[in-house]
Parts: sequence; structure tokens; C-alpha cells
Amino acid sequence: MKVEILDTTLRDGAQHRQVSYSSVDKLDVMAALDRLGVHYVEFGAPGFDPAADKLARLELPSSRSVPVAFGMTCKKGLEPDKDENLRTLVNCPASTLTIVGKAHALQVRDVLKTDLDENLRIIEQSVTYATKNDKTVIFDAEHFFDGYRYDAEYAIEALTAAVRGGAKVITLCDTNGGALPDDVKDVTAAVVKRFPNVRVGIHCHNDNGLAVASTLAAVKAGASHVQGTLLGIGERCGNANLSTLLPLLVFEGYAEGIDLKLLTPIARTVAEITNITIPDSFPYVGAGAFAHKAGLHADGMLKAGGSFEHVDPASVGNIRQLLLSKEAGRHLLIAKLKPFFPDIAEDGEGLKRIARALKEREDEGYTYEAAEASFVILAGKILDRDVTRFEPVGYSVTNTSDEPECTATTTIRVGDVTRSASAKGLGPVHALDKAMRECMLNFFPSIDKVSLIDYKVRVINPKSATGAAVRVLITTTDGRHIWKTVGVSEDIIRASFDALADSYHFALSDDFDFYFG
Amino acid sequence: MKVEILDTTLRDGAQHRQVSYSSVDKLDVMAALDRLGVHYVEFGAPGFDPAADKLARLELPSSRSVPVAFGMTCKKGLEPDKDENLRTLVNCPASTLTIVGKAHALQVRDVLKTDLDENLRIIEQSVTYATKNDKTVIFDAEHFFDGYRYDAEYAIEALTAAVRGGAKVITLCDTNGGALPDDVKDVTAAVVKRFPNVRVGIHCHNDNGLAVASTLAAVKAGASHVQGTLLGIGERCGNANLSTLLPLLVFEGYAEGIDLKLLTPIARTVAEITNITIPDSFPYVGAGAFAHKAGLHADGMLKAGGSFEHVDPASVGNIRQLLLSKEAGRHLLIAKLKPFFPDIAEDGEGLKRIARALKEREDEGYTYEAAEASFVILAGKILDRDVTRFEPVGYSVTNTSDEPECTATTTIRVGDVTRSASAKGLGPVHALDKAMRECMLNFFPSIDKVSLIDYKVRVINPKSATGAAVRVLITTTDGRHIWKTVGVSEDIIRASFDALADSYHFALSDDFDFYFG
Repeated sequence: MKVEILDTTLRDGAQHRQVSYSSVDKLDVMAALDRLGVHYVEFGAPGFDPAADKLARLELPSSRSVPVAFGMTCKKGLEPDKDENLRTLVNCPASTLTIVGKAHALQVRDVLKTDLDENLRIIEQSVTYATKNDKTVIFDAEHFFDGYRYDAEYAIEALTAAVRGGAKVITLCDTNGGALPDDVKDVTAAVVKRFPNVRVGIHCHNDNGLAVASTLAAVKAGASHVQGTLLGIGERCGNANLSTLLPLLVFEGYAEGIDLKLLTPIARTVAEITNITIPDSFPYVGAGAFAHKAGLHADGMLKAGGSFEHVDPASVGNIRQLLLSKEAGRHLLIAKLKPFFPDIAEDGEGLKRIARALKEREDEGYTYEAAEASFVILAGKILDRDVTRFEPVGYSVTNTSDEPECTATTTIRVGDVTRSASAKGLGPVHALDKAMRECMLNFFPSIDKVSLIDYKVRVINPKSATGAAVRVLITTTDGRHIWKTVGVSEDIIRASFDALADSYHFALSDDFDFYFG
Repeated sequence: MKVEILDTTLRDGAQHRQVSYSSVDKLDVMAALDRLGVHYVEFGAPGFDPAADKLARLELPSSRSVPVAFGMTCKKGLEPDKDENLRTLVNCPASTLTIVGKAHALQVRDVLKTDLDENLRIIEQSVTYATKNDKTVIFDAEHFFDGYRYDAEYAIEALTAAVRGGAKVITLCDTNGGALPDDVKDVTAAVVKRFPNVRVGIHCHNDNGLAVASTLAAVKAGASHVQGTLLGIGERCGNANLSTLLPLLVFEGYAEGIDLKLLTPIARTVAEITNITIPDSFPYVGAGAFAHKAGLHADGMLKAGGSFEHVDPASVGNIRQLLLSKEAGRHLLIAKLKPFFPDIAEDGEGLKRIARALKEREDEGYTYEAAEASFVILAGKILDRDVTRFEPVGYSVTNTSDEPECTATTTIRVGDVTRSASAKGLGPVHALDKAMRECMLNFFPSIDKVSLIDYKVRVINPKSATGAAVRVLITTTDGRHIWKTVGVSEDIIRASFDALADSYHFALSDDFDFYFG
């Protein structure tokens, strides 16, 4: 039996700090997960989350992913159809519901404050109420692994109640995220044996850093339904990370129907909607997951692609990167520079000077790993092959709380002609950017199709507080290509001006007509 | 046999993008790891890394951690003492060396480009050269698991050569990070059985998200030497994360001598030196590892601490946090506000207005989860219990590339008195901060002991590029307490001014004399 995947980015993932979704965000994430081929998308808890309420009133679009609404079993002492929240859930148009109930005897007594039999009645009747109304039910057994250790028999009785109610899936939840893979494996195997006619699911949290491993262990033991979030977001340390699990499950033959080649772009789309930054070092989908820095390794990669890779980056929609840094070997520098300076010599003085400059600049806080366009401009200057077509002369910015907008003036020189322009903007950098464009357009009309698409600020030495140096990274596009530039200064305006100037230098340079990742 | 821990933050961790160490950084990291009780600290590769060269000339201080120098086996066709790099390594004062060699037959032929016997000669003689010079040798077998799958017998022969040379530890490396825990377990068990008289080590990379799980599996199979980096940094997806592994190994009884209560502060110290940001959701040591956001969970935590925690946060030097957000339940809001507004009513209109404001502000991009001081000031205003003692009237900033410094003027009002002050600074925010201090000191001399210790900028909607809104987070201290404030605007100067004003409001408020995490 192949494994089904349920993504709960929109429900359990909403517990992640600083994450919150509008209903449009939710629809965008659902569309992305649908393209990826995830089998179920849990979109929220109607009655508890206004965005989920909106969605719960819609017939949700889906080509592959089944939309799932989430809710709790009925309250103690209540018949299911008298419980307003459960009634709302069962009456929503979604065909499939996740219903969460308690499986830990101690939690039933101490948190729910009821007796063990009443909890079994709650589970069975709640699930029955849903299945009688033609819903497919996934029963999430909260605190299952801790509950099993405390009172295995009762934990199993809770599952039995859900199965009697007609649940199609019974999910074993490691709610606190402390279970170990070997224990998850043993307990899952016991449950699978006990319930041969339903799917057993697994839902792990990552508090011990083992959510992916425990999920995999459960699948090996026979679990055939996996819950997680695409980016591993969720309360505390997050939920099992599907962007890691999906390749593992597909490559090992446990899952199918997932379009892995879309994994990286879809992970990045979801990150953008969620406003989460994917760490560069994230397995499979991080910008640096296939990046090679060490002189030795990177040289090895140039010789024999794959020596230091466990899978082909393209199989998960990612790309290999050889990173520019002071540790970069000579071969890597040459490989990066050849397209621009075809006659650069392997053992020439120019290459040595470039390597030295790279090191000095990195010590000042520059980083060219994510700003290769600035690196090419720097290299051109060092090689006396300056590729710049204008000189950024200066700027001034005035910013006062009396005015709603900020004013900037910039000056550039082309040959003997100097031009200045002024512009207003929402903030100093926005005004600077607009003034700079205005200046540039005087000389270079082609700049019209160039626009900035990303602007990042990083405080380099935060202990110096507001006197700290900042690094500004700017991403620019002309609609066909994308390039990145960097500026560093204690003055954010200066750093932004330098990165902007590099960006326009690069835009104007005829030679550089290929994509920079 | 208890497990020994080797931290390679300073050697393999230096392969992480944007990480580079001075020799002073290295000494600071070594001192921190020594306090934690890590058994070995690998400080770098003399001959390849100038900072390691400096350290390799010193008698390194250590109370508990043994400093370890790293290097490669001799080159093909060379006697070990004729290989300059190996000679440098063996002649450095460190008592213990890691020597890395090849264990993968295919790599020997294709990358090293030599025959299989020559590689065995290289390994045995290199290790012998070191042990004859009274060094303790840890032999790292590169690509071991891939090599074992390709040609198990040869991989074992490579280990045998190292053992014949006198290696005390033979470390099985998953260099490409693609091995699965069950395979690691089986292979490790076979090696442990084969070499009963040496320690078997494990060195995993995290390319499949399973480095911690595989390390744990190896330890269960008898490995008694674990390599990793404290923050999981390293090339590509990083090395096995010791901040996750150490609690697991200690709690499960595999390791001892580690001062786990220092884990979180030491992880943060190392992060600061390394200029790495620890994600909030990092297991055990992340700021949010024990943070509770959901109304339900957080209310549960207030009722019964531990319901949603797998270990006591204090056991790893971390703290529990109940997060303020629009999902915060009423109980949590009350718990946060009571210390400041003791008579706030559980079901009063004030509390409802605060919850509403929290939601609105979050939708604008504010976040109070990390800026509780701003939240308290906001709540005071809503409750008509304004705690502010001055009014921030306005500012103006002038910044021109003709001047080395930037000038700012700020104005505040106290009662009927309005004061302005000007100052120059390295950048606009620095100048603003200095002008603001100057203004404040006119009225409130106690401000003298208040200083900013951290300044963070986050672009909220990066797709709007330089027109994007930014969130500024400021951390302030008076030497005894630490508090955090937030400002949001499309204009970074405005956002900074607002966060600064909140910071000074809080500093001046008599009531708030306890620590905010």
C-alpha cells in the first residue's frame, strides 16, 4: 500500500511563530500543494480561524489534493450534533475531515477532566456523526505515543472507538515531539498489526530533531498515511518536514504521485506566501543544499560532478552551486570568470589579485556567494577591464517626519556629462532608487525594463547596535535574467547606493546575458 | 563504553557558507566548548587555514576539551615525512590529530587516481608516522558508507590499515549525507564487531535531514565516538547537529560529562561568534523551542506546565515562552499584562480592545512575540493608563555622500517643554539614535546608563524591493534588564524612530523592573 501524504501547513503550520494566513494565502498554498501532488491538504479549523471559516463555505478547487477541514471531537457531556463546533465542521462542504481526540489516559483525566469511558464515547460518537453525514474521517490520536507508554491498552481503545465510528485513517500523533524512531517503529508495528483494515497514519513533531526519522521509521513499520508541513513549520520546533520526507519516501519507493521536480520551486512559493525564510542549508530545497565551498570539494565537483552529492539536484528541482568565497580554489574562480574574461590566465597575476581582493572584501563583511554580479564588476576593475558605463558620483537624502515622503538626489557621470535627479519615495532607499533610475534613464533608456525584485538588509555585527555595519543585497531583473549585487557600510544609504550602482552597471554590460542563480 | 564527543565547528563547520573564523574567534569557540564539556575540539587544518596555523603554534588552553588538529594522509608516491602538510601537522603541539583518508575504492581510482594498494600504504604509513611521534590519531574514513556499499571488503581494509598504524579511533564518515539510519546501524554494527579493540566513530552530514538520527543509530550499534558541529553548520546541509544530539545522548545514557544546563547559552555564544542566526524552531536551543502560541496549548500550559513539552526547558538551559500573537488566548494575555496592570479584568472591554489591536497591528507587520516592551506600552495606551513620560515629536535626517557622517535632528516634548537635539553618526539610524539620546538626557539623566545592544532589520514584503515595509527590532539594556521593542514602516528611519521611542518609554517607566526574555 503506497503512502498518502497530508500537508498541514495551513492548520498545524499556523501555530508557527510569526505565521498567519489570509484566506487568499490559504488558497495560494493549496494551489501550490495541489500542483506538487500532495494527497490531502488540511486547510484549517472552521470555527476557530476566520480564514478557515471562509474556505469552509466554498467548494474548494482541487485537481489532485483533497481539501481537509480540521476539528475536535464533541465536548464532554454533549451529543455530537449538539456541539456547535463539530456541527459546523460536519456541515462544511469538505468531503474529508480530520477529527482530533485524546488517547492518553492521564490527559483525559487531568486536562479534559472526565472519565476514561466518557472519552471513548466522545470519540466514537463524534466520528460516527461525521461518517453518517458522508464524510471521510481521519482520526488524529493526540499524545498517542506518550499515552501508549502510560497505558497502552487505553491508547488502543481510543483507536478502536474511532474505527468503530468508521474512521478511514487512524493517525498516531507524537504531540510533544519527544518520541524516538525505534519506539515509534515498534508501537506503529503493533498498531498496524492490531488494525489491519484501516490506514495507520503518523504525525510527528520535531522537538528532538527526529521527526523525519520517526516518520520514516513508522512508514517502514507499515504506516501508510503521513502528516507534516512542507517547510517543517509548526509550533515550537515544528512538524515533520515534508520537503525532506517527500524525496526520501519517493526515492525509497514508499510514495508515488508526487512531482518531485517541482519540490524546490513549490517550497519557495509556499515560503514566500508564508513569509518564512528557508535556511540555505535546508535539505533538498535550500539554496545551499547543493552548494560547494571548500577549494578541495569544489575542485572535485568540477572534475567529477556528483563526488559530493547524494542525489542529482535536478531530481528535486534544485541546482548545484559552486560558491565564491575566500576558500574558493583557483579552478572555481577560473570557471566563474571565464565566461566574462575568456583570456584570463590560470596562473596569472590577475587571478591572484582577484583572490586577494575577495579575501579582503569578505573580511570587511562583503559576501559574493549570493552576489556574483558585484563580483564580476569587481574582477573587471582589478583586471583593468572595467565593464562599467557610468560613474556613480554621489547622493543626498533628506528625511523628516514632517513630510510623508522622503527625498533623494543622486548624481552620475557618463564621459564628461554629469547629471543629477531627485525623487520622492516611501523611505530613503526607495527615494534613492527612484532618483537613481531617473538619472540613468537620461543616458540609458534600456534601463526602463530593469526593476528591483528583492532587497535584503543584514546587520553584520549586531552588538554595535545602530552603529553596526549592514550588508545590503539587491536582486534585479530585466524580465529575462536575474542578478544579485551587494553593498556594505555602517551607513545603510551608502550600502544601498553601492549595491544599486552595481546592479545598474551589470544591467548595462552587453556581455553578461546569461542567468545568475 | 560512554560516547566521546568531537566538535568540528571550527574545521568542517568552516565550510558553511558565510562562515569564516579569525584565530581569536577560534579561541573563543574553543573556550565555550570547553565549558560545555565536549571531549575533543577540532580547531582546523594547519597549512590550509591561516587561523589554524596560528593556533597550531600555541599550547592551547583546555580544562576539559582536548584540542585536535586536522589534516590529510600523505600524497601518493610520497613517504609521510616528505609530505610538507603532514609534517606540519605532526609537528604541531596538539596531542591529538584527525587524519582523513579514502575508504571508497571508486574514489581512490577516479579522484585520487592511484591504485588500491597505494591508498592502503598511504593510510597505514601516515597514521604510523603520527603515532610514532606520540600523537593520538583519529582516522576519518571519507565516503565510508558509500564505499562500503560499493566494495565492503576494501572499505574494511582501509580501516584495517589505519588500525595497523595505531589509530585510536576509526570514524565512519557519511561524506555525502545520503545514508539512511537503518543502513548506518547495520554497517556500524559490522565494523564494531570487526574491530573490538578501537573506538568506532560516526561522522554524518545532513543532506537527507537524517544526520542526527543516523548518528544515534550508529551509537545504538556500538559507535562510541561522535563527530558533529554544535549548531549543525557545515558544507551544503551541514553536519550532525550536536545541540540536538547532546541532549539525546545524555538523556538516553550514552554520554556523560556534558554540562547540558549550559547548552542553550553556549549555543548562542557560538552563534554570535560565528555570526549564525539560530532559527527560533531549533530543537532544544532555539528561542521558540519551548514557545507556545495556540490559545489552546498556551492555556493548557498555564493550567498544567509540561502538557506539551517533552523535556524541562531548564534541563538544557532554555526557557518556556508563551507567545503573544493574535492567536493568544485570553488567559495568556491576562498572564502577560497582570504584572503591569494588576486590576485588568478577565472579561473586561479593555482586554478585548487589546486583543483587537494586537490583531490589527500584526496584520500591518508588527510582531510582539519578540517585542513585549512595545506591547506593554501599546496596552497602556489602550487602557488609558499611558505609561509614557515624553512625546516623540519628530525627526529629520540628512545624508549625503559628500560628508563622511550623517546628521539627524530629533524633537521630543515633556509636558509643555519641547527640546530638539542634533547629532552626527555613521549612518542615519546611528545619527538618529545619538540625537534622540541627547534630547532625552536633557530631561532624564538616568538614560545615561541605558544602551542599545542589538538592532535588527527585516524586510517584510521583499517583493516590493526598496519600497517594501521593514520591521525594526531593537534590544536595549540598562545593565540589569533587557527589553525589546518594534517599529514598522516603509521608511526604515520612521520604523527605527518608533522602536527607539518605545525603548526609551520603557526605560523610563518605573513599574517595569523585571527581565523580558
